[in-house]
Amino acid sequence: QLQTFVSLSIYMDYNATTPLEPEVIQAISEALQDAWGNPSSNYTADVTFVPVSKVTARVEVDDVIAAVRPNTCLISVMLANNETGVIMPVREICQRIKSLNKRRERLRILLHTDAAQALGKIRVDASELGVDYLTVVGHKFYAPRIGALYVNGPGTKTPLHPMLFGGGQERNFRPGTENTPMIAGLGKAAELVTSHLSGYESRMQYTRLYLEERLRAVFKDKIQFNSHYPGSDILPNTCNVSILGPTLQGWRVLSNCRRLLASVGAACHSDSGNRPSHILLSCGVPSEVAANALRLSVGRKTTEEDVDAVVEDLRETVKLLEEMN
Amino acid sequence: QLQTFVSLSIYMDYNATTPLEPEVIQAISEALQDAWGNPSSNYTADVTFVPVSKVTARVEVDDVIAAVRPNTCLISVMLANNETGVIMPVREICQRIKSLNKRRERLRILLHTDAAQALGKIRVDASELGVDYLTVVGHKFYAPRIGALYVNGPGTKTPLHPMLFGGGQERNFRPGTENTPMIAGLGKAAELVTSHLSGYESRMQYTRLYLEERLRAVFKDKIQFNSHYPGSDILPNTCNVSILGPTLQGWRVLSNCRRLLASVGAACHSDSGNRPSHILLSCGVPSEVAANALRLSVGRKTTEEDVDAVVEDLRETVKLLEEMN
Repeated sequence: QLQTFVSLSIYMDYNATTPLEPEVIQAISEALQDAWGNPSSNYTADVTFVPVSKVTARVEVDDVIAAVRPNTCLISVMLANNETGVIMPVREICQRIKSLNKRRERLRILLHTDAAQALGKIRVDASELGVDYLTVVGHKFYAPRIGALYVNGPGTKTPLHPMLFGGGQERNFRPGTENTPMIAGLGKAAELVTSHLSGYESRMQYTRLYLEERLRAVFKDKIQFNSHYPGSDILPNTCNVSILGPTLQGWRVLSNCRRLLASVGAACHSDSGNRPSHILLSCGVPSEVAANALRLSVGRKTTEEDVDAVVEDLRETVKLLEEMN
Repeated sequence: QLQTFVSLSIYMDYNATTPLEPEVIQAISEALQDAWGNPSSNYTADVTFVPVSKVTARVEVDDVIAAVRPNTCLISVMLANNETGVIMPVREICQRIKSLNKRRERLRILLHTDAAQALGKIRVDASELGVDYLTVVGHKFYAPRIGALYVNGPGTKTPLHPMLFGGGQERNFRPGTENTPMIAGLGKAAELVTSHLSGYESRMQYTRLYLEERLRAVFKDKIQFNSHYPGSDILPNTCNVSILGPTLQGWRVLSNCRRLLASVGAACHSDSGNRPSHILLSCGVPSEVAANALRLSVGRKTTEEDVDAVVEDLRETVKLLEEMN
C-alpha cells in the first residue's frame, strides 16, 4: 500500500536533497569494494594517565582506582589494545567505579570505552560492561567509514554536549544531514556481527593460532610474541610478533616482503617513523625486540594458504636481510 | 606491473581497516539509491546580521560594506538562498572587501560563501568569486552525504584551525580515517557537474519555467511567485510560489496533495512548525502570502509530465480546500 503511494508520488524538493547519479553510486561502490585500506592538536584538560602493567600488558583495576582524584569526572579505557590485542578489564573497572560513585557526594565518575578494536572480534555488550559511553568504529568490523557513540540515556541519564553547532539534527547533539546510507551500512554490519560473532571469532582464532604455530615452526627460538602476556586475554585475530636479529627491524622486514601487507603499529600515527612502538615499550617489551615488531592481524576470510604464503615470504625476507648483513 | 603485485599481496592488517562484507555494500547501495530524502546551539560570537533588501531579496553590497566594523574579521554570505533561489552578489562583495582590506592596517577580512544550493545549478568558481572559503555539500548535487570546505591555501594564505582533535589525518586539520568511498562519490559528482553543467542548467530552467507557466494558466491571479524579484537572478530550478486564499496555507496544501512531495521552506529547520518562513518575511513577502508558500524545486530529471501531474494535484487540492471552507 505504502509502496504504491510512494511510487505515484512526485518529488519536487530538489533544493532539500537530490538523488545520486548512477555514475556516483558506481564510484562509491567501487571504492567501497576496492579502496578500503587505511590512508592516513590537543585540547588541554587535566588528565591522569595510568600505565599498563609490564607483566600483563593490561591496565590493572587497582591502578585505575588508585589514580582517582577528587575532581575525576571521566575514566576512558580502550576495550582492546590495537597493537597487542590485549583485552582490558573494563567490566571490573566499571563495577569498582560504580561502588565508588555511591560514596562520592557530588561528582559522579563517568565511564567510557573505545570498542573500535573489539567489536566484531569478541562479544561487546555495553550494559554488561557497565559503561556510560562506548565508541563504535565502522571500518574495523567490515562496515563503512562511519562511527557511532553509544550513550546510556543521552542528555538524561548520561550527559552529552554537542561539539559542533548548526542545524537541529539528531536532537541538537550533532548538526548536519544524517548520512543515512552509511548508517544503513553500519547497521547491516552490526547485524552480521550479532548473528555470526561466534563463527567469526573461532575462525579468526583458528587462523591466528595456525599463523603462530607456523611462525614457531619456521623461526624456532628467533621468534617472540608481543601479544602473549600471562593472565591476559587477547583478541582472536591479533599476532604481534618480533623476529629477533640486528637487521630485522619491523619496517625493514615489511619493506622487503614481496607479498605481506601489514604494519609495525598503529596505522594512524605513522609519523613516528621507525622508532619502536611506545605501546610495546610500555608493556615491558625490550627496545631491540619492540623495534622488530610486526603487527599481523587476520580477517574473517584469511586462509591457511594465505598464512603459509606470508610465513614463506617472511622466511625468504629474513634470509635475505641476514645475508646482506 | 603494479596490478600484478597488488593481486599477489596478502593483507594482514585487519586491525587497521577491514573490507566491507557484500551485504554491507548492498545495504549502502540500496540506501544510496532509495533513501536519499532529507530526514531531519549556538556558539556566541560578536555577529552583525545584514538583512536582505525587501525589493531585490538580495543582500546588497553597500549594506555589507556599511556594516563592516573595525573588528570585523569574517564575512559569510550564502551564494544562493535555499528558499527563494535568489543569487547573492558574492563576487561584488569580495571585490569591495578586497579594496577595503588594502586600507586596513592589521585585520584582514576573510570571505566565506556557502555554495550548498548553487553548486550543480549555476557556475561556481571559487577564484572567480574571490572567496577565501567555500562550502560544498554533496547531497545537494547528486553526490553522497559528505561535505567539503574549499580553502584558498589552508593554513598558509588563509587561516584554518581544527575544531576536532585526535589523529593526525588531513594535515591535522580534521581527525579520523578519511571516508574515501564518499570522497570518490563527491569527486565523481563534481566531475559530472563540470562536464554537464550547461545541460543541467538549461534543462532545469526549462522545466521550472514550464512549471511557472502551468501554474499561471491554472491559478491565474491567485498565484504569487515568491522567487521573482526585480533585478535579481535566481537558481534555474527553484519556484517558490503561494496560491492565495484563506485556507491555502502551505502545510495544509502539501498535506492534502496526493502525489506532490515538496516543502514549505528549509527542510532542516522544520521545528518552526506552521509559522510563515522568516526568510520570505524578510524579503518583504506579506505574512498571509508567506504562510501559503510552497517551495517547488525541480531536478535534473523532472519531466513535463511530472509538472503536469503536480499542477493537476495542486488544482484538485485547492478545489477541495476551498470547498471545505
